[in-house]
Amino acid sequence: MQNTFDDTIARATELLQRKDLAAMSELVADLSPADAARVLERADSAERAVLYRLLPKDQALDVFEQFDASLRGELLGALRDDDVITLFEELDPDDRVELVDELPSNVAHRLMQGLSATERDLTAPMLGYAKGSVGRRMSPEYIRVHPSTTAAQALHQVRTTGADAESVYMLPVTDDRRRLVGVATLADVATAAPDTTIGDLASAGPVVTAEISAEDAARMCLGNRSPAVVVVDSEHRLIGIVTIEQASRILEEAEDEDAARAGGTEPLRRPYLSTPVLSIVRSRVVWLLVLALSAILTVQVLEIFEHALAAVVTLALFIPLLTGTGGNTGSQAATTVTRALAVGDVRPRDIAAVLFREVRVGATMGAMLGSLGFVIAGLVYDFHLGLVIGSTLLAICTLAATVGGAMPLIAKKIGVDPAVFSTPFISTFCDASGLIVYFAIAKLVLGV
Amino acid sequence: MQNTFDDTIARATELLQRKDLAAMSELVADLSPADAARVLERADSAERAVLYRLLPKDQALDVFEQFDASLRGELLGALRDDDVITLFEELDPDDRVELVDELPSNVAHRLMQGLSATERDLTAPMLGYAKGSVGRRMSPEYIRVHPSTTAAQALHQVRTTGADAESVYMLPVTDDRRRLVGVATLADVATAAPDTTIGDLASAGPVVTAEISAEDAARMCLGNRSPAVVVVDSEHRLIGIVTIEQASRILEEAEDEDAARAGGTEPLRRPYLSTPVLSIVRSRVVWLLVLALSAILTVQVLEIFEHALAAVVTLALFIPLLTGTGGNTGSQAATTVTRALAVGDVRPRDIAAVLFREVRVGATMGAMLGSLGFVIAGLVYDFHLGLVIGSTLLAICTLAATVGGAMPLIAKKIGVDPAVFSTPFISTFCDASGLIVYFAIAKLVLGV
Repeated sequence: MQNTFDDTIARATELLQRKDLAAMSELVADLSPADAARVLERADSAERAVLYRLLPKDQALDVFEQFDASLRGELLGALRDDDVITLFEELDPDDRVELVDELPSNVAHRLMQGLSATERDLTAPMLGYAKGSVGRRMSPEYIRVHPSTTAAQALHQVRTTGADAESVYMLPVTDDRRRLVGVATLADVATAAPDTTIGDLASAGPVVTAEISAEDAARMCLGNRSPAVVVVDSEHRLIGIVTIEQASRILEEAEDEDAARAGGTEPLRRPYLSTPVLSIVRSRVVWLLVLALSAILTVQVLEIFEHALAAVVTLALFIPLLTGTGGNTGSQAATTVTRALAVGDVRPRDIAAVLFREVRVGATMGAMLGSLGFVIAGLVYDFHLGLVIGSTLLAICTLAATVGGAMPLIAKKIGVDPAVFSTPFISTFCDASGLIVYFAIAKLVLGV
Repeated sequence: MQNTFDDTIARATELLQRKDLAAMSELVADLSPADAARVLERADSAERAVLYRLLPKDQALDVFEQFDASLRGELLGALRDDDVITLFEELDPDDRVELVDELPSNVAHRLMQGLSATERDLTAPMLGYAKGSVGRRMSPEYIRVHPSTTAAQALHQVRTTGADAESVYMLPVTDDRRRLVGVATLADVATAAPDTTIGDLASAGPVVTAEISAEDAARMCLGNRSPAVVVVDSEHRLIGIVTIEQASRILEEAEDEDAARAGGTEPLRRPYLSTPVLSIVRSRVVWLLVLALSAILTVQVLEIFEHALAAVVTLALFIPLLTGTGGNTGSQAATTVTRALAVGDVRPRDIAAVLFREVRVGATMGAMLGSLGFVIAGLVYDFHLGLVIGSTLLAICTLAATVGGAMPLIAKKIGVDPAVFSTPFISTFCDASGLIVYFAIAKLVLGV
């Protein structure tokens, strides 16, 4: 499979280089929507628009749904107005809401006005929920069943109304006033005796309110091995579902963001090869600048110790080694704790437990590295320098692990993305504080 | 929802501190399997074993399945032999295979021998596939249907045999010789007219061979918005399915590994708070040591320039700032490209395109940071030092972005995990090469 697709990509790349859009369009027409999207992403934006318009009508929508949000917005700009209106009408409500967030507000407003009443009524309430909340990412198209329905009747209902629903795998059970009383999965219904009532089949099921974060809802869906979670409003009335497909897409986006932020960049939100160079620069340069400016701190710290440096130039040789080790230790701790936070193994109020662990981890690693540093530096240079390097490594590792472990929790507590606040800043902090420790120890031992 | 669970965790922590296992056991019995597992993970391993044995029989298996692999292995060691045999028999084949990988081989062998013939026949072939391949992670329990079956008959088949299957949502379609001819989802079947034949309903569906990596198969499953992918052997005979639940678990593990490796640690494979301090040290110290030893390179580079340092001590002040900026630029590029590789946006043979992008991105950012550095250092110190700092920033950013972008692709090409090979090593490389560039420029401009 993988190889065949690799060949397709190679062929597409070749056709694009030859600008042979006709052959390219034939190639794309035979692919699955996911593969077709992958191939189109490799074209530049003008070619992509042409190729997209050449797609058979029934394939076009499926391919569109495979694109990242920002690519969808761009593509929309390249289509004819009436095509845009048709496309917008045909999108699922959750995809439509995502697109609205990508578009200039006047365009979005016009498109919303152009919707049929049914589709507008489905979409408008979702736009009332905050960005990042599950209310904005759910699907309002589900099949709800009444507790008195039998399994056979529910299957009939699925057969006759299933085509309009986002998923037929999760059937929320509601009373006469649309209040959720439970959920039944299609598996429950399909494996039950035909005359069992849904009321008897239903379980409490995974339920969330519309205000909670989409990421938490997604984790609940996947953690419960459930085909969907059910979303209710504050009065426990059913308003939507999040399917496992949507859940894993939400988590994938969250991972994307965490991975990017931990590496000190903003997520690109579109495929790397189709992102303009200046957009990549924009996603990185602010971070780089902030980090470089905070690194001026290290220049100032070193200025304080300039005369010690002038007296013993050898001290300068170890600066990158020591700050590097501190940075690595800190980012190890931060990575582990950030991840534990994301999957819910650790919560901000566990900070005492985390600190207690990281002090011990840091001190243990510091003792190991410090002994090694003492021996090596002691042999190559002299005993006193060995002592300085060894004790500095011990101190830096302990400090860095503790700070690295605490940072993500503090970030979460004050409402900042732990991935942002932790890894990139830990380096700078470790650099500056590590240098202070280093020269303090050097002063003590060498008397400079 | 979230708050209630937070309260539960708080109450559990309190009960654990009071060592009130009786009250604790009552608390756990009322929770969903996912929540119960989360609470048990917070106990130490002796308490966890006691609490687990106090669980009602029917809940115990569900809770066990929620634990991480390494915790499962540990827990098994704390159970009575006959309990272990019962549990092992009741596990799904894919969970069983995962457990076998965690256990000492003599224990695993004994357990496999103790299995009923049916379960052994399901499990043994999976153990023949390589670790990491989808053959080892699939489920061999599915409902296969014949093309001549009608939708109504297929629903009947689901009702009567569904309880034994891993998922009833994906029905592979096979001919008389068990060769796969297509797939039909339960949604297809449930929404079709009752007398439609499966042959007419079936689509080609997402199919993989057992040898491909579990991660690729999982991405295909989620990319195709399919309830499962179907796994075949080299003769296109049906041998298993990977459900979307399994797929997202496989991807979650892969993300875990990538996130950990990018931060220079090994993944813990169990919840942070229940991992012994020495295991955490073990997951980090090898990396830290390797990185520290390679950082000795920076000491040697600086030694070469020791007399320049002695002549102009001010040069030492900028070392952490410059190496830090190089490291940040490099890890930004590596993070983006590693992620693009993981999701399939970029392949190793795209290296020329990636390099061309990163050179431009790096040079643009270097020009911006370099101008700023020139002005600041020029004003605070003097024109010549400003020139050195400015040009060094330009050179370092360009170099670091290019190397950072290339590393993950080279790693992938030679079969190493891109996350391992890239981020941690890029810092060291950037540190050493950045220092060389710095002093070369300083020599040129300042003549030291």
